[in-house]
Amino acid sequence: MLSLINDEEVIVAAEIIHPNTQDTVDPVDAVFALHRGGKMEVRATVPVRDADDLSLAYTPGVARVCTAIAEQPELVNDYTWKSNVVAVVTDGTAVLGLGDIGPEASLPVMEGKAILFKQFGGVDAVPIALACTDVDEIVETVVRMAPSFGGVNLEDISAPRCFEIERRLQDALDIPIFHDDQHGTAIVSTAALWNAAKVTGREIGDLRAVISGAGAAGIAIAKMLVAAGIGDVSVCDRRGVVYDGRGDLTDVKAEIAAVTNKAGLKGSLADALNGADVFIGVSGGTVPEEAVATMAEGCFIFAMANPTPEIHPEVAHKYAAVVATGRSDFPNQINNVLAFPGIFAGALQVRATRITEGMKLAAAQALAGVVADELTAQKVIPSPFDERVAPAVTKAVAEAARREGVARR
Amino acid sequence: MLSLINDEEVIVAAEIIHPNTQDTVDPVDAVFALHRGGKMEVRATVPVRDADDLSLAYTPGVARVCTAIAEQPELVNDYTWKSNVVAVVTDGTAVLGLGDIGPEASLPVMEGKAILFKQFGGVDAVPIALACTDVDEIVETVVRMAPSFGGVNLEDISAPRCFEIERRLQDALDIPIFHDDQHGTAIVSTAALWNAAKVTGREIGDLRAVISGAGAAGIAIAKMLVAAGIGDVSVCDRRGVVYDGRGDLTDVKAEIAAVTNKAGLKGSLADALNGADVFIGVSGGTVPEEAVATMAEGCFIFAMANPTPEIHPEVAHKYAAVVATGRSDFPNQINNVLAFPGIFAGALQVRATRITEGMKLAAAQALAGVVADELTAQKVIPSPFDERVAPAVTKAVAEAARREGVARR
Repeated sequence: MLSLINDEEVIVAAEIIHPNTQDTVDPVDAVFALHRGGKMEVRATVPVRDADDLSLAYTPGVARVCTAIAEQPELVNDYTWKSNVVAVVTDGTAVLGLGDIGPEASLPVMEGKAILFKQFGGVDAVPIALACTDVDEIVETVVRMAPSFGGVNLEDISAPRCFEIERRLQDALDIPIFHDDQHGTAIVSTAALWNAAKVTGREIGDLRAVISGAGAAGIAIAKMLVAAGIGDVSVCDRRGVVYDGRGDLTDVKAEIAAVTNKAGLKGSLADALNGADVFIGVSGGTVPEEAVATMAEGCFIFAMANPTPEIHPEVAHKYAAVVATGRSDFPNQINNVLAFPGIFAGALQVRATRITEGMKLAAAQALAGVVADELTAQKVIPSPFDERVAPAVTKAVAEAARREGVARR
Repeated sequence: MLSLINDEEVIVAAEIIHPNTQDTVDPVDAVFALHRGGKMEVRATVPVRDADDLSLAYTPGVARVCTAIAEQPELVNDYTWKSNVVAVVTDGTAVLGLGDIGPEASLPVMEGKAILFKQFGGVDAVPIALACTDVDEIVETVVRMAPSFGGVNLEDISAPRCFEIERRLQDALDIPIFHDDQHGTAIVSTAALWNAAKVTGREIGDLRAVISGAGAAGIAIAKMLVAAGIGDVSVCDRRGVVYDGRGDLTDVKAEIAAVTNKAGLKGSLADALNGADVFIGVSGGTVPEEAVATMAEGCFIFAMANPTPEIHPEVAHKYAAVVATGRSDFPNQINNVLAFPGIFAGALQVRATRITEGMKLAAAQALAGVVADELTAQKVIPSPFDERVAPAVTKAVAEAARREGVARR
């Protein structure tokens, strides 16, 4: 028997100490007040006021729609919400900076994600937090529930499992599978880098980048920068540069080592930064100012750790021509919400079977293009609330899906 | 590669022949027009207009809510939508009268169910149509996704698998599991029977009932009538009365045989009807008028098959004091929507760990009570649109949950 929950016990939450900040969590403050009862609901889009409505929306009328879909399965996309609804799937193992907090505790983030899908992309989304962390179990669970969904957004699943889960799900299913922590971050970072190069008169092919962090985001950013034609990029994990032949690499890191680090670097992050043109931080931790000072003149610093950037913008600005962070209180916020709503809206619009590298690059180009006319070092990326963003990304992704032959209409 | 879907191909649906009615399905008619794009959406219940909103609803604010839940897991019910959202789970094997049409084709029904949950009970519901039919697989899949939901409504899963799935899920999970095709039908039928007895001055303990159909609904109705104190009840399948010791019984039928059929009947449905006080049809097929004519004087006929009642109301009225059907165009419609929204609303309100027999009986009593003051033979059950129904059922179920010790608040 579980304990009773009542108002007294809820107040007990006031005694919770936040593990990171050591602050006392006050459940009656604005955040908790806003989250009370959750942040989303389901609504009917058709009337259910009387028996006539019911006979159309439910029995007996609905039987005709069911029969039509049974005969012609693609009609499920026309006559149900499937083609506009995305499962936001997590196992709660890598939630924000909090780590493995489990499925229930991840739900507030998944709900947040779901409402951002709707708000920015017009896409319906449903949080699915799973009580399993085994790769096989996650894959088979999502495959089994897939008939209900038009796409799957993987969220906050720890590396390296996230890579295999995404690949295997996409192999098994003909709906788009997208791990936002990888590709969302990569798309927005690439867009920012293109604009940073443009505003400073550089060519991306002449730049050498260093990525701090070889998790989901770091690996995906590296792959995308390679696809975008970066001069060189080296990925660093806790032990320094990930290089071909390093003895301790996971499969994923070995794979990334093979396509990055043309310079053949083998040292620490600080060593790699010496003379580098771009720093991309997706790791947490802090980069010493001495190391920052060794970067090339006119460098770009994207320090995206939240809430504490790897290099504080005040320090970064001493050395860099363009500075971006993950925070909303500094200019150039690298925020995934700039990508995922439009990515899925575009993919769902044309009923794409997958999200290809070309669609991701098209999304990044469209995103960069939104601020083309107002480009400055302080605005290499649009605001998350720029209303031009989602339509531009949606259109670019839908067109790219058609070009790449993965659109079904 | 799947075929392209375009407007031309959608029009092809015009050529579909409905397998039951042989009608041509016209996709531009009112039903298809209403279902176009689906019948539901997800909506935010909190504002996401600017960076301040985002910092509360999403990062960084949301991290505090996640942390609080990680520390005190019951808080997930206070600070997410979990405690108000039900998964409407099917495998598409027993959809309406259409049978095993698969998960995608079942989605229009599941969406319909979801919007009825919201409309009548204020409960959010999400269709989950599964691509598996194996009992073990369904159970493990639902268990894995359970952290996201406050309850599970099983729907249109064929017998006898539905019984085992429900039992095993309820054993594994501490949220309510409810197979509506069983218990929803049983609750509404029992309520109607109570009122039929009342309006005709009978006692339920003096009545002998015959149930035609030993599937999900028939078995559940039999169990509930026994719990409600029926004089005697016999369940009939295609081979006639299900009796203790009949050689061909499934486990579920053997179990029901052991607690029903005190009269020791062994013949056909027609034999059983001879002198019976109540007919309850949940089977389809037709009962010959000659058999109906042998029922006891002042009998009750609940012929619930849709769209064709086992005994047409015109025939039934020649012999019966009270007649009910499953159809909205005759009086006394036995419609599950009278039960499931309030059942879940009540169970979720007190965070019940399960839905007990006592809660189901309380729901039936409350439902019967709604029309107590206006009771006639033409109104033994309220209209689905009677606004008193869901609040009455909700209250009764919540109170019963507390009485029975399964409420968590």
